[in-house]
Amino acid sequence: MTESALRLRPFLPALQGYTPGEQLAGKNIIKLNTNECPYPPAHRVVERAQESLKSLRLYPNPGSDTLREVLANYHGLKPEQILVGNGSDEILRLLVHAFIGPNDHIAMVDLTYSLYPVLAASFGGGASVYPLGENYELPEAFFDAPEPILFLANPNPPIGILYSREEVARLCRSRQDRLVVIDEAYADFAPRDCVSLLNDFENLVVTRTFSKSYSLAGMRLGYLMGHPALVAELMKLKDSYNLNRVAQEAAIGAIEACGEMRVNARRIVETRGHTVQALKELGYRVPESQGNFVFAIHPDARAHFLALRERGILVRYFDVPRLSNGMRISIGTPEEMQTLIAALKEILK
Amino acid sequence: MTESALRLRPFLPALQGYTPGEQLAGKNIIKLNTNECPYPPAHRVVERAQESLKSLRLYPNPGSDTLREVLANYHGLKPEQILVGNGSDEILRLLVHAFIGPNDHIAMVDLTYSLYPVLAASFGGGASVYPLGENYELPEAFFDAPEPILFLANPNPPIGILYSREEVARLCRSRQDRLVVIDEAYADFAPRDCVSLLNDFENLVVTRTFSKSYSLAGMRLGYLMGHPALVAELMKLKDSYNLNRVAQEAAIGAIEACGEMRVNARRIVETRGHTVQALKELGYRVPESQGNFVFAIHPDARAHFLALRERGILVRYFDVPRLSNGMRISIGTPEEMQTLIAALKEILK
Repeated sequence: MTESALRLRPFLPALQGYTPGEQLAGKNIIKLNTNECPYPPAHRVVERAQESLKSLRLYPNPGSDTLREVLANYHGLKPEQILVGNGSDEILRLLVHAFIGPNDHIAMVDLTYSLYPVLAASFGGGASVYPLGENYELPEAFFDAPEPILFLANPNPPIGILYSREEVARLCRSRQDRLVVIDEAYADFAPRDCVSLLNDFENLVVTRTFSKSYSLAGMRLGYLMGHPALVAELMKLKDSYNLNRVAQEAAIGAIEACGEMRVNARRIVETRGHTVQALKELGYRVPESQGNFVFAIHPDARAHFLALRERGILVRYFDVPRLSNGMRISIGTPEEMQTLIAALKEILK
Repeated sequence: MTESALRLRPFLPALQGYTPGEQLAGKNIIKLNTNECPYPPAHRVVERAQESLKSLRLYPNPGSDTLREVLANYHGLKPEQILVGNGSDEILRLLVHAFIGPNDHIAMVDLTYSLYPVLAASFGGGASVYPLGENYELPEAFFDAPEPILFLANPNPPIGILYSREEVARLCRSRQDRLVVIDEAYADFAPRDCVSLLNDFENLVVTRTFSKSYSLAGMRLGYLMGHPALVAELMKLKDSYNLNRVAQEAAIGAIEACGEMRVNARRIVETRGHTVQALKELGYRVPESQGNFVFAIHPDARAHFLALRERGILVRYFDVPRLSNGMRISIGTPEEMQTLIAALKEILK
């Protein structure tokens, strides 16, 4: 191609895109590699989605207004504090778009969701990385990070550490000219969240997804909660009709049936406990996780990952320095986890 | 808010977002203001969408690979030449993202889809505007426009002019270091398109939408066809899972049933002919349109627009210099257009 002739933005040819987890499918595959929920979404979700198929010829509501009201009610906020997106991927991208241009940097810790630095790079910017301590604690320098926007997943994958509300408050307090984004993709599996801090800090944003606890990874739904003035700025950047009719209705159904989500989340937390116990008995080191996944550490982790793969069990392996000695294992059904443990027993023999 | 304290990108606070057409709904409203299709999508679309609701808990295919193959077959291209998006809105945004940074400009004509300059501004750039001639012909300077990316809708709303394949070829030929984007949102209502030119020009991109001829505005589906190397660059910028499972399946169903789309498009073209005739008999000037809309010119256009609105008939009025003397009227069913004409007769009395 005359690709070189075309005047693409200078950073683009060298940009490395994000690599999603494998989406291998098959009847006998046990998929524990992308933190999906093993249980189906609530029936109410499917009902509402089906109903929406009757009016596909008409544009959707551009602002997802009804859904914003439903979410505002759910969290005890105002609709103007909510922005919904095509997955929290879109939400996170919009946040980076609003703050990062060429030469700007985001602040992030070093073991975290690997999408953040990709987003920064896709706007010509970069990432200032603050390495977590030995026990994954937040480094002191992070609290005073001078970057205009800071990302912290909480619980933080791929380990699953949950930072305290007081630590998040300190992040907000220490630099009021900096936006603090708390990515709560996994909050429904944890004992606490940071939503109530929105009352105290105008420079705080909390993001959520329907992909994990709500079993809706296939529908692409996420949202943020933040100050109305910031939400208004982000609304200008989003695609006019960013959520199709089916997704808007499905999300409303999911909130209506949020009790079912909570039951599923509790089952996963219980299964997580049994899984951690079993992994430890096999000799793995497993830091405490508050997500729907655990990180199992073992000197031969990479070999175990490959051996599981041969047996049709997919887990996630990250070939980066601090993670190459472990596997991130999503929590599936009790039966799936028993199969996993049995396979690991064989592999370890 | 401490909004001023937050370090948003400097151009954002002053940015004017895109204003979508009104989405007023109601039992007795005749909606001829956003160029939706008055006929429902094919049954096959709904069937496939329904089937997809069974696997919502799993992430969708990130590249929409099956859909790309289906579209490639449909157009006689290779899958690597196709990028699918959450509406052609996403496709157009990705194109701007890949080429426009602060101080860069897109090239566009002055009567056209008003989203293009909004997108340029949302990346800190601007738009160099080339005014169309008196009869909406392309200005000579446009062919040699020095900007890195040029947008031309064809047919071009809100008038509906169709530019010739030779003119598009000349746009591509005259500056090979410039990407030429031909937005064919309305091509299914026109007698010809520019897809075959993709064989001749590596700097050409053609975009399409499912919102108009396929009756799927509510599903958010669009795509582009272009050089594989450019598609690969844009893939790095899109959200990893930009199309949910339901939209991917619906689009496959729509292509499978494309014969139904063609029947609907023919009906609309026929209704367009009758509508133009009737509007001319009422004294409107109506430039030839090859879209699913017409632009009806009259000194009292604004008053007519408002009077129609009072009667529950929505058309689009643009309060900008060259368009303030007309209304853009989407083509609905024959019955809807008869109601419109009858209303205008009354209004003109």
